[in-house]
Amino acid sequence: MTRTDLQSGLGAFQTVHVPLGDRAYDVRIGEGLVDRAGAHIAPLLGKKKRVCVITEVNVADQHLDSLRAGLAAAGIEMEVLILPAGESTKCWAELSKTVEWLLAQKVERNDIVVAFGGGVIGDLAGFAAAILRRGVRFVQMPTSLLAQVDSSVGGKTGINSREAGKNLIGAFHQPSLVLADISILASLTPRDFLSGCGEVVKYGMLGDEAFFEWLEENGPLMAQGDVAARTYAVKRSVEMKAEIVVRDETEQGDRALLNLGHTFCHALEAATGYSDRLLHGEGVAIGCALAFELSARLGLCSQEAPSRVRSQIKAMGMKCDLKDIAGDLPSAEALVDLMAQDKKVLDGQLRFVLARSIGDSFVTSDVPREAVLRVIQDGLDARAAT
Amino acid sequence: MTRTDLQSGLGAFQTVHVPLGDRAYDVRIGEGLVDRAGAHIAPLLGKKKRVCVITEVNVADQHLDSLRAGLAAAGIEMEVLILPAGESTKCWAELSKTVEWLLAQKVERNDIVVAFGGGVIGDLAGFAAAILRRGVRFVQMPTSLLAQVDSSVGGKTGINSREAGKNLIGAFHQPSLVLADISILASLTPRDFLSGCGEVVKYGMLGDEAFFEWLEENGPLMAQGDVAARTYAVKRSVEMKAEIVVRDETEQGDRALLNLGHTFCHALEAATGYSDRLLHGEGVAIGCALAFELSARLGLCSQEAPSRVRSQIKAMGMKCDLKDIAGDLPSAEALVDLMAQDKKVLDGQLRFVLARSIGDSFVTSDVPREAVLRVIQDGLDARAAT
Repeated sequence: MTRTDLQSGLGAFQTVHVPLGDRAYDVRIGEGLVDRAGAHIAPLLGKKKRVCVITEVNVADQHLDSLRAGLAAAGIEMEVLILPAGESTKCWAELSKTVEWLLAQKVERNDIVVAFGGGVIGDLAGFAAAILRRGVRFVQMPTSLLAQVDSSVGGKTGINSREAGKNLIGAFHQPSLVLADISILASLTPRDFLSGCGEVVKYGMLGDEAFFEWLEENGPLMAQGDVAARTYAVKRSVEMKAEIVVRDETEQGDRALLNLGHTFCHALEAATGYSDRLLHGEGVAIGCALAFELSARLGLCSQEAPSRVRSQIKAMGMKCDLKDIAGDLPSAEALVDLMAQDKKVLDGQLRFVLARSIGDSFVTSDVPREAVLRVIQDGLDARAAT
Repeated sequence: MTRTDLQSGLGAFQTVHVPLGDRAYDVRIGEGLVDRAGAHIAPLLGKKKRVCVITEVNVADQHLDSLRAGLAAAGIEMEVLILPAGESTKCWAELSKTVEWLLAQKVERNDIVVAFGGGVIGDLAGFAAAILRRGVRFVQMPTSLLAQVDSSVGGKTGINSREAGKNLIGAFHQPSLVLADISILASLTPRDFLSGCGEVVKYGMLGDEAFFEWLEENGPLMAQGDVAARTYAVKRSVEMKAEIVVRDETEQGDRALLNLGHTFCHALEAATGYSDRLLHGEGVAIGCALAFELSARLGLCSQEAPSRVRSQIKAMGMKCDLKDIAGDLPSAEALVDLMAQDKKVLDGQLRFVLARSIGDSFVTSDVPREAVLRVIQDGLDARAAT
């Protein structure tokens, strides 16, 4: 699935191909892709050398001039819509604003919409592209590590319901191209970068022991800024996500493996109000540690696996335990109740991704509520003791 | 594609199968399907014997009790959301209201949403189902002739943009089942029924001369209420739509043939403000007459074809000419400009469905603007002369 390219104007980059039939696309990973965006996007355009870019204020402040120059270098003009930053942008009002703006730009079926930002922008702009004229093509240009390794690949797009929860409204709409610029990661705050690492470590834990071991060795280096390590980590994460998405594009089965740590994570995010008390990737890392703890207590994996998982998370400087979450948390009972409100719940049954070992996970609905409660209660007790 | 079924509890009905791989479904056509809705829908449900019904006030007043009883006969409960009637319901506000209502009903991926109404309800509820949790299943129960022969088959769902036009926001989302109850057509006003006939006659004209001839003989009978004639007309229309949709699910090519008469129709609808001055099917019939007139003048079909087309339309009591539209119309130039705003326009090129003969149509962008202007101007002149 991977090859290294060096073509005129395109610079050096690596490619992960996502072979989804007539919805196939490439994820290109490398330095300076924003500066060379025009050369990458030009082959997708028809006669009209123009793209419509959806972004948010912070990304626009830092990177919009580079993108404009990168497109202009290939003779491509851009129109731009700058949305507010933050999760609350994934709402009906911003969706309708975005779609109506694209219609006002007279975007037709052969045109390209560019999502330039983190997961919020990718999800919102991708969904807008999905429902505009029943589907126009779009290019993901993820600017956060989280978006590069997770949300920009696989075609899940959507917004949140204020009442009912996150990502409950949306579409499967695959991008036509993903440009993951490693250089841009240098502009992230350390906390935002480490949050993205939550999704990176998840891939090793759920399906690739060799990648887990690579991260044991190189994770700290990657966290500190090493570009080669970051490129490899993004590439391997995207490869793994692509393999799983190809097996199960619309989440009927295997794709659920990608939710390792997420059942816990969603409850913790809900409990902290989806605020900056807990970033998504932080919740994933903590959730992975809890999922391995639960697996060990159920006798599914060795007693050593949870501590190895926690060591990796801590070595990279990430949040790892319930006690790393500032402020109050609800009771264990209340947290388990929050889990039951996740959208992946079928007929009211809680589903978990558990592990037989590091790199070997599976989906199950066969988890005693009592065992889940105990794992969470122990985590809460450790908080109280500090 | 067609068979006749008589199964226990299901009554007598005919089936058109729409073979779209894992999105395949049946369209069932017959009398009393609302009364037997439960028996038809039960096999689609899991453990939860409940459906969520989206409808509108007029349909609810007339038919909701029958549907409730029909579902209850198979032990199925229903929750119901009653929306305002009319095209203006296809808007962002009603869409978000519908989706949030479905979420509040805790609709999960295995549940069924029922669209019970005309094209507006089918388009809106189908779109809501498409984006709820990135896609839940839905059943179309079209209550107008227009919806039975057109919008409930083929998976086009969506809403309107207030600024930019009709159906510009939406998704392709195939229903799991379509129940076209012929009995319910008896409750339509004659004008609403005849409007639906605009889409029916279109099928003969665009692709089936034998059906055109059948309508020359039986059209007036059908218009007057003959149930056997109505059943056959709906079945044959659905068969033709299904054949074309299967060839081209996402409208890259052949599906455009279904737009015979629609380029003219959309301009006339825009000119009359999408009001009850001109119903959609009325515009389609007038548009078909204009498309054959244009085809004859361009030397594509015989001089006799347009008059045969107009005779069929008039024999059924339908609106046929620009002079049948009450009130003022804009100039020919203004009408052609309105055509260019249709969402199927690519790179600004006007596209028409024209005909080589009755039953043999094709799509072309190669139509001189001058010829279109002259056909419309002659129609406007005939109005002025009356």
